[in-house]
Amino acid sequence: MQYMQYMQQITGFFKKKVLISGGLGFLGSNLAIKLVELGAKVTIIDSLIPEYGGNLWNINPIKDKVTVNISDVRDEHSMRHLIQGQEYFFNLAGQTSHLDSMNNPFTDLDINAKSQLSILEACRKYNPDIKVVFASTRQLYGKPRYLPVDENHPVVPIDVNGINKMSGECYHIVYNQVYGIKTIIFRLTNTFGPRMRIKDARQTFLGIWVRNLIENKPITIFGDGTQIRDYNYVDDVVEAFLNVEKYESWSGDIYNLGNNDPISLKSTAELMIKENNAGSFDFVDFPKELKKIDIGDYYCDYSKISKHLGWTPQTSNCLGFKKTLKYFKENYEHYI
Amino acid sequence: MQYMQYMQQITGFFKKKVLISGGLGFLGSNLAIKLVELGAKVTIIDSLIPEYGGNLWNINPIKDKVTVNISDVRDEHSMRHLIQGQEYFFNLAGQTSHLDSMNNPFTDLDINAKSQLSILEACRKYNPDIKVVFASTRQLYGKPRYLPVDENHPVVPIDVNGINKMSGECYHIVYNQVYGIKTIIFRLTNTFGPRMRIKDARQTFLGIWVRNLIENKPITIFGDGTQIRDYNYVDDVVEAFLNVEKYESWSGDIYNLGNNDPISLKSTAELMIKENNAGSFDFVDFPKELKKIDIGDYYCDYSKISKHLGWTPQTSNCLGFKKTLKYFKENYEHYI
Repeated sequence: MQYMQYMQQITGFFKKKVLISGGLGFLGSNLAIKLVELGAKVTIIDSLIPEYGGNLWNINPIKDKVTVNISDVRDEHSMRHLIQGQEYFFNLAGQTSHLDSMNNPFTDLDINAKSQLSILEACRKYNPDIKVVFASTRQLYGKPRYLPVDENHPVVPIDVNGINKMSGECYHIVYNQVYGIKTIIFRLTNTFGPRMRIKDARQTFLGIWVRNLIENKPITIFGDGTQIRDYNYVDDVVEAFLNVEKYESWSGDIYNLGNNDPISLKSTAELMIKENNAGSFDFVDFPKELKKIDIGDYYCDYSKISKHLGWTPQTSNCLGFKKTLKYFKENYEHYI
Repeated sequence: MQYMQYMQQITGFFKKKVLISGGLGFLGSNLAIKLVELGAKVTIIDSLIPEYGGNLWNINPIKDKVTVNISDVRDEHSMRHLIQGQEYFFNLAGQTSHLDSMNNPFTDLDINAKSQLSILEACRKYNPDIKVVFASTRQLYGKPRYLPVDENHPVVPIDVNGINKMSGECYHIVYNQVYGIKTIIFRLTNTFGPRMRIKDARQTFLGIWVRNLIENKPITIFGDGTQIRDYNYVDDVVEAFLNVEKYESWSGDIYNLGNNDPISLKSTAELMIKENNAGSFDFVDFPKELKKIDIGDYYCDYSKISKHLGWTPQTSNCLGFKKTLKYFKENYEHYI
């Protein structure tokens, strides 16, 4: 009983009913593991589409402590049922590949825009008091007009994925303003860590880099390696999600996530090789189809979330890469 | 021959193959009539969905001089065929009702976003040299943060229609940047004139006002009548469309249309009553479902198009209302 009281004191998620879409994916599974630790009653939705991030192994540590519902956010009937009775909904399912969005724009539209409408309609009709946390992306900003990018930066998406994610985000805001649906939006930057997709570069190029390092293959850097990125270790992103507890207005505010140590692609490769104690990298010309939708240098100003929700990233790039490599070396066979 | 040469001199549309979606609607039919006058070979696409603006009577003056294809922009197969061989595509079909977009968000998404993707995919694959003119809307700006609203104003749509139109617009820009599809975007304000929908307020509240005046019923003003709007008479908007001839880069630039005589709703009603030589108006409280998606005062800065394409509106509100009332009095039975 003492332990339970302690849990109640430190977290508002104790015994809370929480739904996570994309819950077998990278962010969703890490969040689910933490929420189970905190005593939440977690239901996971995931479609397990092979090209996306869902992987049953991701929830191995909590497999007997969560409800897993295999379905697609495009399936409005299952969503309508699953959303009922939930207190929090971490809306994380999405198509994340920029290149896939250009090659198959209709699938991207269905998942990133239409499904969001469908989810919000279900909330409005069947659970208007649910609190919705939406995972958006820095891709909405397009090519930065200034650095660091804050939340007031113009939204000028440069690929189909960015446009559809923008719609998904806007629906959340309109459904808040018109119907009072409680929502908060996080614009994520490159997130990495245990349980990410490493099969290919679909989720993040860091995935395929980790795989190559483990397989003793050289890392491939597109361009000259000077491009700047800010990375978040997944535990820090999970922490930001959990900090929604401190959010009182639930009025669709937008928060950037980022860190204060943006580095070049070349430095990223060097750092990962150092943490791996082995490895090499090659430069290749930017593939033409990627160059056209590339955003150039990016790093953000995350001071708004620091100020409002008290969040700052805690994990250095070095430590993050070390932990990530360790995880994938130990669990390699489940991810390739 | 002399006449033809004269036509060739004054317009680049002589003998040009031009496709107009929504061509039986308000803007589309007025544009088609003008293009036929200028010697263009016009094909019209329209779905004739009863709630939208399509009306066969609209093209009565040119019914034997255009090709009419009844189909829906959501029908990718017919679009794929129709787009081939065309030199210009005036992409005007759209769902325009803000309230309908809230009541049936999926239809709005299909027409205003998904169909646009489908159209652009067809252009990319089957007619990459076509010039696409996209009719967008001031609704993208949401509630103005400053007045007059220029093209740099943040895009913050406040209803589902605004979000989906924003996607449709962004797809045009991305398809230009990535695939080189030639495109230009006009953000229209309240447009009025002959051939608009007057059955109800779905296309513009000015429609139902005209109908009420003709039927000797009082005009209903929502709110206190102080709200400001800028109106464009349809001939001026058609002129802007024809001015794309002067546009050389075809690189997805965005242009506001507007006029320099913004007036209040109350003044609008008074002006229309004056031109009608009869009529009255009542004030009623803003309906709750409309208030939430209302944008407040709006008028725009259209100096960018004036500078780049030499366009300025020529028709005063008074003259516009006079001509509109005359048209609908003469053609009343075809519009109710």
